[in-house]
Amino acid sequence: MRRGPFIAGDWGTSNLRLWLCADDGTVLDRAEGPGVAAATGRLETVFLYATGTWRAAHGPLPTLMCGMVGSTIGWVEAAYHPCPADVRSLATGLTRFTAAGTEIAIVPGLSTRTALDAPDVMRGEETQILGVLASRPELAEGHHLLCLPGTHAKWALLNDGRVENFQTGFTGELFALLRQHSVLGRGTDGLQPQVGPAFTLGVERALSGISLSHLLFQARSRQLLDGMNAQDALSFLSGLVIGGDVAGGLAMMAGLPDTPVILVASPALIQSYQAALSVAGRGGIGLDGGDLALAGLLSIRAATLAGNL
Amino acid sequence: MRRGPFIAGDWGTSNLRLWLCADDGTVLDRAEGPGVAAATGRLETVFLYATGTWRAAHGPLPTLMCGMVGSTIGWVEAAYHPCPADVRSLATGLTRFTAAGTEIAIVPGLSTRTALDAPDVMRGEETQILGVLASRPELAEGHHLLCLPGTHAKWALLNDGRVENFQTGFTGELFALLRQHSVLGRGTDGLQPQVGPAFTLGVERALSGISLSHLLFQARSRQLLDGMNAQDALSFLSGLVIGGDVAGGLAMMAGLPDTPVILVASPALIQSYQAALSVAGRGGIGLDGGDLALAGLLSIRAATLAGNL
Repeated sequence: MRRGPFIAGDWGTSNLRLWLCADDGTVLDRAEGPGVAAATGRLETVFLYATGTWRAAHGPLPTLMCGMVGSTIGWVEAAYHPCPADVRSLATGLTRFTAAGTEIAIVPGLSTRTALDAPDVMRGEETQILGVLASRPELAEGHHLLCLPGTHAKWALLNDGRVENFQTGFTGELFALLRQHSVLGRGTDGLQPQVGPAFTLGVERALSGISLSHLLFQARSRQLLDGMNAQDALSFLSGLVIGGDVAGGLAMMAGLPDTPVILVASPALIQSYQAALSVAGRGGIGLDGGDLALAGLLSIRAATLAGNL
Repeated sequence: MRRGPFIAGDWGTSNLRLWLCADDGTVLDRAEGPGVAAATGRLETVFLYATGTWRAAHGPLPTLMCGMVGSTIGWVEAAYHPCPADVRSLATGLTRFTAAGTEIAIVPGLSTRTALDAPDVMRGEETQILGVLASRPELAEGHHLLCLPGTHAKWALLNDGRVENFQTGFTGELFALLRQHSVLGRGTDGLQPQVGPAFTLGVERALSGISLSHLLFQARSRQLLDGMNAQDALSFLSGLVIGGDVAGGLAMMAGLPDTPVILVASPALIQSYQAALSVAGRGGIGLDGGDLALAGLLSIRAATLAGNL
């Protein structure tokens, strides 16, 4: 990328977030727009509309974006980069094209082969991970386990600043399905899972090695037989699902030092994951997920400038 | 119950099935009606309407029913009987009342405490299990593991003809949720899971001890990275869910002889479970679930007559 003002963008499934930046990365302005799911088929139009004022003022602005904008339903497909990957390999692997005179570069997603040769993918989180590394340089040395909870939780194993491997937990989507569409969610309208004894019980059971399929129904049978109320049943269910996610994530660290897990999420999710990790005898350090995508995009841009890419 | 013609009924969540029987159990006529979910609040009316012709011909007919008719949303609540339980304890535990001059008895559900003191319940399946024992008297000796797959799969450990313990797998409902409401079901309209290599791979992974939450997303990533088609992804997903159910069920037999699992289900489900059990190194014997509820009700009636209950 060339020097001067530029646009950084995080275009995910649900939201478009754009930053107009000065050459040194200072944010001059922000804009938002519809996610890839809503804008699919007309991403160029949406982008040009959202950035019209900036381009009128500055002329064509080089643009660096991450997220689902590079998926098959995005703007231009950016192939997955296989692990291990670091900021330099992502900067080298940018997909570049031109739209209305604007040079656009899209960050590749990451692919990996996890335990038993299973494939896994992420798109967008690789840039957030670079943002974490930018704000926490001490994580660029040694092994660290990062967890980005959400609809599809991403657990990434860092080794000396590279993403060595990662795994996806179907955590947020599974909980939403069970709550909204299953018999286990009955009577929980308006309730939110709480971190407390029922949540902890769910985590303990999920960590016990019993098959999740044989644990879920307890969210109902404990109400029928043990007088558990709907609030506690919901918290128990959350504990089961988050506990299963933690069990899967910690398995990636087998044989490595018991360093605390770095949790990148909202305060509520950080609290839940810290509680679940604590049941597993592990610490968790919470980081606000705020503008990590922007921080990661700035790292990638710096790498392109440094490497003359 | 007294001698003479009688009505046997299996009134579940979705269906009412009624049989008019001669004193020796011969079926004289059959009738059907709406399940408890659709009929809730007016079960007496539905019952009297469905049996009107029979009662007009024979006078008030003693009636023995099992299933959700005894639940909190049923007709009259029949408390759960704790395990261990056999035909005699169920016959002793009938809930009796009179409606429009008709003596009605409802079979209790079963409750248990499984591993780690978790509560579990069944309602209706206890009677089907008695039906299995009536048709397979050799199962009334020693330990046997029965599996009744379905929305909520029930795994029952028999010991000398008693239900010693049981566990519920959230299997059918979980698969339906994932298929109908999650990103993993995309593109699978009109497809059915098949027993083949993709199914077997799912079962193997589910039996590997990896957290289900970290396996589910592979139904998508294998399509994105490995060119797996939607048909195979659906079969893989089915293998994950059924494999998790089998892992949970077989854990109940730890330390007991490796006898084949008795599978009570439709031919398609029997095939899937046999394939999954085979991956786990276990045999499975299929039994048609046909009129097992009726056979179980006849056993309970015989016990009431023999025991003068």
